[in-house]
Amino acid sequence: MSSHSFSKRAYSFFKTYPSAAKLLLLSTCSGGGLLVYSDSNPLKRTLTADGQETKKKKVVVLGSGWGGYSFLSYLNNPNYDVQVVSPRNFFLFTPLLPSVTNGTVEARSIVEPIRGLMRKKGFEYTEAECVKIDASNKKILCRSKDGASKDAKEFDMDYDILVVAVGAKPNTFNTPGVEENAHFLKEAEDALKIRQSVINSFERASLPDLTEEERKKILHFVVVGGGPTGVEFSAELHDFLVEDVAKIYPKVQEFTRITLLEAGDHILNMFDKRITAFAEEKFQRDGIDLKTKNMVVGVTADEISTKEIATGRIVSEPYGMVVWSTGIGIRPVIKEFMHQIGQGQRRVLATDEWLRVEGCDSVYALGDTATINQRRVMEDIAAIFSKADKGETGTLNKKEFKSVVKDICQRYPQVELYLKKKKLRNIANLLKSANGDDTEVNIETFKQALSEVDTQMKNLPATAQVASQQGKYLAKCFNKMEKCEKKPEGPLRFRGEGRHRFQPFRYRHFGSFAPLGGEQTAAELPGDWVSIGHSSQWLWYSVYASKLVSWRTRSLVVSDWVRRFIFGRDSSSI
Amino acid sequence: MSSHSFSKRAYSFFKTYPSAAKLLLLSTCSGGGLLVYSDSNPLKRTLTADGQETKKKKVVVLGSGWGGYSFLSYLNNPNYDVQVVSPRNFFLFTPLLPSVTNGTVEARSIVEPIRGLMRKKGFEYTEAECVKIDASNKKILCRSKDGASKDAKEFDMDYDILVVAVGAKPNTFNTPGVEENAHFLKEAEDALKIRQSVINSFERASLPDLTEEERKKILHFVVVGGGPTGVEFSAELHDFLVEDVAKIYPKVQEFTRITLLEAGDHILNMFDKRITAFAEEKFQRDGIDLKTKNMVVGVTADEISTKEIATGRIVSEPYGMVVWSTGIGIRPVIKEFMHQIGQGQRRVLATDEWLRVEGCDSVYALGDTATINQRRVMEDIAAIFSKADKGETGTLNKKEFKSVVKDICQRYPQVELYLKKKKLRNIANLLKSANGDDTEVNIETFKQALSEVDTQMKNLPATAQVASQQGKYLAKCFNKMEKCEKKPEGPLRFRGEGRHRFQPFRYRHFGSFAPLGGEQTAAELPGDWVSIGHSSQWLWYSVYASKLVSWRTRSLVVSDWVRRFIFGRDSSSI
Repeated sequence: MSSHSFSKRAYSFFKTYPSAAKLLLLSTCSGGGLLVYSDSNPLKRTLTADGQETKKKKVVVLGSGWGGYSFLSYLNNPNYDVQVVSPRNFFLFTPLLPSVTNGTVEARSIVEPIRGLMRKKGFEYTEAECVKIDASNKKILCRSKDGASKDAKEFDMDYDILVVAVGAKPNTFNTPGVEENAHFLKEAEDALKIRQSVINSFERASLPDLTEEERKKILHFVVVGGGPTGVEFSAELHDFLVEDVAKIYPKVQEFTRITLLEAGDHILNMFDKRITAFAEEKFQRDGIDLKTKNMVVGVTADEISTKEIATGRIVSEPYGMVVWSTGIGIRPVIKEFMHQIGQGQRRVLATDEWLRVEGCDSVYALGDTATINQRRVMEDIAAIFSKADKGETGTLNKKEFKSVVKDICQRYPQVELYLKKKKLRNIANLLKSANGDDTEVNIETFKQALSEVDTQMKNLPATAQVASQQGKYLAKCFNKMEKCEKKPEGPLRFRGEGRHRFQPFRYRHFGSFAPLGGEQTAAELPGDWVSIGHSSQWLWYSVYASKLVSWRTRSLVVSDWVRRFIFGRDSSSI
Repeated sequence: MSSHSFSKRAYSFFKTYPSAAKLLLLSTCSGGGLLVYSDSNPLKRTLTADGQETKKKKVVVLGSGWGGYSFLSYLNNPNYDVQVVSPRNFFLFTPLLPSVTNGTVEARSIVEPIRGLMRKKGFEYTEAECVKIDASNKKILCRSKDGASKDAKEFDMDYDILVVAVGAKPNTFNTPGVEENAHFLKEAEDALKIRQSVINSFERASLPDLTEEERKKILHFVVVGGGPTGVEFSAELHDFLVEDVAKIYPKVQEFTRITLLEAGDHILNMFDKRITAFAEEKFQRDGIDLKTKNMVVGVTADEISTKEIATGRIVSEPYGMVVWSTGIGIRPVIKEFMHQIGQGQRRVLATDEWLRVEGCDSVYALGDTATINQRRVMEDIAAIFSKADKGETGTLNKKEFKSVVKDICQRYPQVELYLKKKKLRNIANLLKSANGDDTEVNIETFKQALSEVDTQMKNLPATAQVASQQGKYLAKCFNKMEKCEKKPEGPLRFRGEGRHRFQPFRYRHFGSFAPLGGEQTAAELPGDWVSIGHSSQWLWYSVYASKLVSWRTRSLVVSDWVRRFIFGRDSSSI
């Protein structure tokens, strides 16, 4: 039996040279990239001269998503005792989640078990959900995930420093019936359920003795929300219908319909207009029923009701399956925490530019959980002026002004954005435009020059990219904590003495992607560069498959693609 | 970006030469075996001379397991209109199911979507469960699988011929609490649930503030049933503990315990004694707590109670998770059907040697659903004798005897087994031993010679091997139905005129396998050949990976093995 003996030989070869096997697969899957593979190297605990462990600060990290996982990946400071609490014992590579809904990629291929990272880093992990943050006592209340038919367990945990990265929950905007009848697309389980539900829809529509209306109802897929997730899911579903359903369910294919509902004027409205137009045209060509300016007002078990925003007219339509992917909402534990720390009136948890939660001590928040409450230049304008006015003359000369320029730009990112928008080379030009050629500037001119700067303030989008950059930023701050406490590297404190410990967080936009199906992806890159097509698809993957994702995930995803390419998508309903 | 351009080049290459991609993967995965790949070739419908479709017989097949899937794979007769009804739209390669419980193999890799086969063969499939067989009206009642929050649908279906291959359900022997608290291991969902539950157990045991007793309880895994499935699951679980848990849950590893309970004297009691002994010793070495001669009498949410058979003493122990894999029970739809056709007193549905259900017309049953009610030689002995005694002399001469020898052996498989056991070359020797050297045999001597033959009658085991051979056998009968109706190829009818249409079903035992963990498999092969070790592991796979399983399944399983080998098992709880 030749197959037998080959396998056996291969087996004993790999048994003898395990690293050869690793290399073989890596070189197969890495696509010619750099080969880097190192076994786990747990951090050694810091020991004092007499061999005793030093008392470490306990850092508790809530969440294992983009923010938390990125923070943990980059954290490298042996002086912290790190404890991770998350109900999900894996990191989920969310950009590929829509691909899981039709089996282009397997859910297991886009998750990274957190225990692996814990082992490598010497961190602790507890599979539990934080249900209450008690900031005044520096302690959290956790509840264990409910294992089958066993009771959940509650327990307290102390912290010295808390890093909150619990993400957000889907936002139904209190639309009646959504919670009960719609699918969401945020977690791996959601994607698996959608996959099962899509296949079940086709199986149900293939049953005998159904009327045409019934089949049409069952196979009417409604996607609510024209953001990247909703658009990508619609596109993936369309691909599945065209590439696979036509073959495996030929008799019911004609009854399928995809409706994409968006309350705004256009889908992908955060993207460049060219992309929006391309996507809308492509969807039209594909036969996806695109309804913009339509708001969902209710979902029953059988019908979805939408309101045409212009006319107020309400239309109800039968549907088979609804996927809800519009906006994010705040988690109850964060809501409660906000009340506690005097942020009860805000829509979302606020941090300063160093990701420290406002109104409490030693708590950081990042990712979709929080937004940075960027300080306005106008609030601080007097302080800035008096700080710069070393001679206390009431005016700034060139030298005085130059001494704070760099700090202003570091402290207030909106300044640079404003200069860029006005196409000015530096802040001196801005001043010049307000003050003519005068070399001395008084407070009024200074105010006037900077008066419009704050219009450039923007909240960062709730994306994986932001969360992961914040995680990395925070970890790097933690890594140099001791050094920077002695020698601060941040900008000048305008309202106090000395300098800030760290540079504030600065987001670098590497581009946004919107996969549009048919192996086409729209990409919006920095510098107004828009690209649509196959090459963007690959660019998209290359960008996301950056440092956070392991070789394991990369090779699993590639092998899933190969599998799908050869065998098609699997239609088994498991 | 080199990775990008490589992928792009590979992509366009495979796009241009898709068959090259297929060949590439196949030659990678097939282990040097024969490369056979053909695209789907749907059967053409038979047309009469004037282009009209002939009226075809409608064959309804219930079930998509080993029996049903094998039948469908080999069925090749264009005169049948085939309709498959099964609640599971895939075939499940059950021998690898225990490997799914710890992630050695993915569930999706060992399933074969049935829609693929349907398309290739031009058969119809309906995802529904048969809930009632109405044999007198040749019709079945089906109920659709309940799609999320939608109501199930019921409908009738007519048949001309019914093939029942619905398998069996787990047998709890009415032990209280088993249904509610134990896991089973029969379906893909079961294996996935067990996998999740095992990981959850470790996460729960890792929670803070637990006593040692609580951790020990959570990590006490109990397996009930020392048959191949229970043994393999225990072995796989043990491998998981040793190879992975030690690394990812180092703090709780010491609290784990596996108990294997078996009511009989030994585990694997259907195997050769050498295998049983080897397995028991290996389990002892591995630290698996093996308790034979112990019967489970009850399972509560926290405790499992066992009775020592010898002493009657009942012991209750705390446990974390119970997997029940002992024996199979009859499905309700079959139970009801048996009452209907007068088999209500039997333990299991009976068919004749041609797999036709006894007591009704045009219904066949195979696999775990039914057993063959083998006819005794002694019941027919007078008929056989009189049929052979062409001269009606009251004795058989050599020539008369010879004329029926072949038919007897074909009709009654126990004869050959008996001869083999007695080490006799043929039936003539048997007669000689009873009759000395007399050339004429009377009925009494004839009876006496064959009197012990029926002791060799055995029910076939409820295995995948039997079901798949029965499916193939039945398909081949159906394929040559028209030919054999004109020219029967079976043995002489002793009680009627002419010959039987087909040879009766004859089971060929290709060996039994029991994977014992640590890449060791015990194999019992025909001719008392027993093999234990790595080579049997490969043999085991080669045998099962026979014609039924597609290249897709084969390559997926191999790639899962490669993944596990390189990256270890995944501990994400999805």
